[in-house]
Amino acid sequence: MKVVTTIAEMRKIRASLKPPLGFVPTMGYLHQGHLSLVKKARAENPSLVVSIFVNPTQFGPREDFKQYPHDTEHDLALLEKADIVFMPTADEIYPPAFSSWVGVGKVSERLEGACRPGHFRGVATVVAELFNIVQPTRAYFGQKDAQQAVVIKKIVADLNMNLEVVVLPTVREPDGLAMSSRNSYLNHKQRQAAVVLYQALCLAQKLWSQGEKDAQIIRQQMTNLIQKEPLAKIDYASVADPQTLEELDRVEAGALVSLAVKIGKVRLIDNVVLE
Amino acid sequence: MKVVTTIAEMRKIRASLKPPLGFVPTMGYLHQGHLSLVKKARAENPSLVVSIFVNPTQFGPREDFKQYPHDTEHDLALLEKADIVFMPTADEIYPPAFSSWVGVGKVSERLEGACRPGHFRGVATVVAELFNIVQPTRAYFGQKDAQQAVVIKKIVADLNMNLEVVVLPTVREPDGLAMSSRNSYLNHKQRQAAVVLYQALCLAQKLWSQGEKDAQIIRQQMTNLIQKEPLAKIDYASVADPQTLEELDRVEAGALVSLAVKIGKVRLIDNVVLE
Repeated sequence: MKVVTTIAEMRKIRASLKPPLGFVPTMGYLHQGHLSLVKKARAENPSLVVSIFVNPTQFGPREDFKQYPHDTEHDLALLEKADIVFMPTADEIYPPAFSSWVGVGKVSERLEGACRPGHFRGVATVVAELFNIVQPTRAYFGQKDAQQAVVIKKIVADLNMNLEVVVLPTVREPDGLAMSSRNSYLNHKQRQAAVVLYQALCLAQKLWSQGEKDAQIIRQQMTNLIQKEPLAKIDYASVADPQTLEELDRVEAGALVSLAVKIGKVRLIDNVVLE
Repeated sequence: MKVVTTIAEMRKIRASLKPPLGFVPTMGYLHQGHLSLVKKARAENPSLVVSIFVNPTQFGPREDFKQYPHDTEHDLALLEKADIVFMPTADEIYPPAFSSWVGVGKVSERLEGACRPGHFRGVATVVAELFNIVQPTRAYFGQKDAQQAVVIKKIVADLNMNLEVVVLPTVREPDGLAMSSRNSYLNHKQRQAAVVLYQALCLAQKLWSQGEKDAQIIRQQMTNLIQKEPLAKIDYASVADPQTLEELDRVEAGALVSLAVKIGKVRLIDNVVLE
């Protein structure tokens, strides 16, 4: 495994990597969710690049960019099976006169996009850059960030980027909490309270299995459950079309049920697709 | 030469073309300006793709999209030395649910961007798509559309697109009028009047050669000259930084002198770089 920090070196090495090339873009502080992507990408491709880059443009001014957790040594130890770990500086990705961006329209304005204005523009822009630099055959993302996966699939399809986007299931702690680098912000009590997201998603799945077709009832039942947890504050509880992310009136199979909930000051997201 | 109309077929054939690949994107109705790009691209690359696509998203609602001149048979006859002529339909490039965009910030908001809001967003988006589909080694553009060349260089640099942008000199009629598909809109009197753009640019070049350093005087002198032509109406007369396109107070070598002038209802642009 080799660590590469400049775009120029990454491009040079890219030319020597045997295709197909798997790519796992991350913001570091790796957990089992990331490692499931790495494992799959390793199994499906003779070459593997993992990137670690905490992307400033996807954080809002009052968000946790400066506190975002990092442990590069630990990350690199976990990535020994990658061919290349690409760790560009912010100046490489956003040089002083940088002014271009990639936007995605309505699908990026709902849910996370409504709570975090500009977030997906930042995501789409950095992902476009990384794809252009790394030129992967397949790029791997987690279902935990469901809207991010939708947005990235959309720019890849719309802009005819020459790669396949692979989305893999959310990896969970034994009690159901979705793995996330931000879980490290939770204190003991908050960690216990955080399971309420998964419980609410399980409730939605159960209501749907029992024949509930009214999306508003499912949203309301999830909201009621979460409101019983004193440490939790809901940003949104959504039952939406999985492609357009428009809120549904009548639930259909494949609907995306998603949540954003603050546990203390820690904002967590999770989702489940109704089967 | 083979005509390709679908993205799927273009991708497939792309894989068989010998690199490096030259690419000339056009909106058709080809003239000597386009052909100078084709000739250079042919000379510099073993493979050559030319695209013909009148891009709806770069036209404003009151602009000439529907009237834009076309003569595909003539164009194809002129392109016999290309390997591939890529002529996608609007539905291929913008399918019904299309919603992604590439934007370029301030450099796209001045001059043409100020007169034609959204124009460069349309240009940047279609060019990003075409680059992703065709995957050229080098793409060729004319200096006549100076701001377009600046915008495209900017997105290629910012988004780390893996190609070289080559900009070639404006090709002119014997009296100096820059070649343009839109010259076909001019009637006989307008065609005679249209030479005033080139005359004004020559005046700017002459003033600069004689030591004039005040940009406002150069702008004013050009304006005065153009206003003497009864059929001409100025959109802008600019002396700007060639990278940022900010208007200059004091002229420096390399400054971009550019004009947009309506001759009757026909809007023409032209420019010269002060040497």
